[in-house]
Amino acid sequence: MKKGRIEAFSDGVIAIIITIMVLELKVPHAAEFKNLLALWPVFLSYILSFIYVGIYWNNHHHLFVVVDRINGRVLWANMHLLFWLSMVPFATAWMGENHFAPAPVALYGFVLLMNGIAYSILTRSLIKHHGNDSVLAKAVGSGFKGTLSVASYALAIGCSFFSVWISGAFYVFVALMWLIPDKRIEKTLE
Amino acid sequence: MKKGRIEAFSDGVIAIIITIMVLELKVPHAAEFKNLLALWPVFLSYILSFIYVGIYWNNHHHLFVVVDRINGRVLWANMHLLFWLSMVPFATAWMGENHFAPAPVALYGFVLLMNGIAYSILTRSLIKHHGNDSVLAKAVGSGFKGTLSVASYALAIGCSFFSVWISGAFYVFVALMWLIPDKRIEKTLE
Amino acid sequence: MKKGRIEAFSDGVIAIIITIMVLELKVPHAAEFKNLLALWPVFLSYILSFIYVGIYWNNHHHLFVVVDRINGRVLWANMHLLFWLSMVPFATAWMGENHFAPAPVALYGFVLLMNGIAYSILTRSLIKHHGNDSVLAKAVGSGFKGTLSVASYALAIGCSFFSVWISGAFYVFVALMWLIPDKRIEKTLE
Amino acid sequence: MKKGRIEAFSDGVIAIIITIMVLELKVPHAAEFKNLLALWPVFLSYILSFIYVGIYWNNHHHLFVVVDRINGRVLWANMHLLFWLSMVPFATAWMGENHFAPAPVALYGFVLLMNGIAYSILTRSLIKHHGNDSVLAKAVGSGFKGTLSVASYALAIGCSFFSVWISGAFYVFVALMWLIPDKRIEKTLE
Repeated sequence: MKKGRIEAFSDGVIAIIITIMVLELKVPHAAEFKNLLALWPVFLSYILSFIYVGIYWNNHHHLFVVVDRINGRVLWANMHLLFWLSMVPFATAWMGENHFAPAPVALYGFVLLMNGIAYSILTRSLIKHHGNDSVLAKAVGSGFKGTLSVASYALAIGCSFFSVWISGAFYVFVALMWLIPDKRIEKTLE
Repeated sequence: MKKGRIEAFSDGVIAIIITIMVLELKVPHAAEFKNLLALWPVFLSYILSFIYVGIYWNNHHHLFVVVDRINGRVLWANMHLLFWLSMVPFATAWMGENHFAPAPVALYGFVLLMNGIAYSILTRSLIKHHGNDSVLAKAVGSGFKGTLSVASYALAIGCSFFSVWISGAFYVFVALMWLIPDKRIEKTLE
Repeated sequence: MKKGRIEAFSDGVIAIIITIMVLELKVPHAAEFKNLLALWPVFLSYILSFIYVGIYWNNHHHLFVVVDRINGRVLWANMHLLFWLSMVPFATAWMGENHFAPAPVALYGFVLLMNGIAYSILTRSLIKHHGNDSVLAKAVGSGFKGTLSVASYALAIGCSFFSVWISGAFYVFVALMWLIPDKRIEKTLE
Repeated sequence: MKKGRIEAFSDGVIAIIITIMVLELKVPHAAEFKNLLALWPVFLSYILSFIYVGIYWNNHHHLFVVVDRINGRVLWANMHLLFWLSMVPFATAWMGENHFAPAPVALYGFVLLMNGIAYSILTRSLIKHHGNDSVLAKAVGSGFKGTLSVASYALAIGCSFFSVWISGAFYVFVALMWLIPDKRIEKTLE
């Protein structure tokens, strides 16, 4: 099976997820700047989630550059990732509307954690289908950044009941780590 | 006529259907975990429908791998399927928000039933266009799983007025039956 | 300029338009069938608009099969069509929620009228770009059905202040006229 | 890396942005034309934003015609543009619902300003990747219209506190300037 349609479907779902979050930016009824400023936790959550979903699209794009073929298992591993990505708008809205209260911050971390695990499952199912000697397996490498991310999310969930700002710092740290471009796949291709 | 654009349009519509269901996950106004847990019927309905729409995309993808060409009849049979798929978010929301009350559970089954019938019509219109000796006709086979699904939905609708849990068990059973990967088309291609 | 991206963008916008109409199907708060039946004008409007948007996608698809190349004028004629298509969900919701009151029925006809005109402008800008001897010009033909549709919409708007049912009959008549597959382009291609 | 998927993802996001704005056109509860007419600021804002997002899609399309290859920096410059485009529906809704009050009109200009800057960053990152002698660099040219747009937005923001109509005139002027088709890239290609 070719990879074209799974890419197109994933692009569609991720494009919708990244965009419908904006529907949670409820327009203030009054027309003063102070009404706008009162929305800062909602905006901050939106920006963070936009970056996270952007990172997932970016990594998905890089990953599928080296994908040759797919099978049923890969289709469902990809669907599983899309499911957890679809939870991001909900977690973002709950966190933003409640001004980073502990429970929503913990849920946000849980959703990121499940996304990290789902991405890892997708990667493994692709490697299994391509073989350990494939270009894909070499390009993916040890997955150190993925493991570090998952550990950070777990720590952030734990911290959320003491200090949501430490949790937030973890979320920002992981996002920055991924924003620094991942040269592995580009290098392997060369 | 080529199949590229009907695939792209179907991907788009299915991607939107699977994603806008998340808009029905209304964010609780309070920030406690108990507020989140109170949403369990909504989450459970969402997960079930995500899997069902995922199954339809998956089967649509497998089906169109063996499609050579399309005609006007196929375009409308596909549009008919997309119509019933677009009813899934409504039925899901009604069922989730009313904690699996009998009428919404029956409606959910009715929508699944109409989807099953619409998929069957699409398959037949494709076979009619490709011929009974085509790779497509062989790959689709007897359609036993489709018939079993439709019968299960009908039974689930009937049961919903006595026990919604039996209906729910039918819905889960059919979903699991389809989650087990369908090797027919992959095998026929080999 | 190639036509691939204008097709993809149009597919995306039309897929979203046809799907977000379902968001206007507000889930009833009670769980009885009578609550569902009370929504019949909303459902009826949805079905009619789903068919209309489906017809536009279908015709757009057929039209672009014979398109060779596009230019800036075509891009904006297409954008103009997408604008009027994007008005369909609004007109549908107003008509459905007000149980086919005269003003919403007239607005619905106006939106259909503008869509018909926009489609005609798109067709002409494509013919101008391809030449009167092109396959496209022959495939499009006299545009009799388009003219009849626009006239029907105009009559339906006028009738809406006396009898909305006559207007509705016009809308159903035009939809049926287009549902009968248009063989012109398929024949010309052969 | 090839450009196909970044085009598809951008098409998806822009298609959703241009379409979800229609969800802010809240259907009036009464069924008289006067209820519809009361929505004129919302419609006017929608039309203006539809044109602006259409211009961005159009320019993005023209730009990527001459793009050969992309890299990680381009991916993120594109994501940055999509972020600011995703702010357009929010700014549009705030402006329309508050009947062009000063603060929302200023915010609208700010969002357009950031879009203009983001587009400029995307263009530069593409030129850097293709080289100053590339077809792309020649096709993009001096960017005079872009600079004029950004200056107009800045002036419009400043004017909004004295007269929102002058700001509005700036927004309409810039839109018209871009609606006049940009022949640079088409000419360079020839």
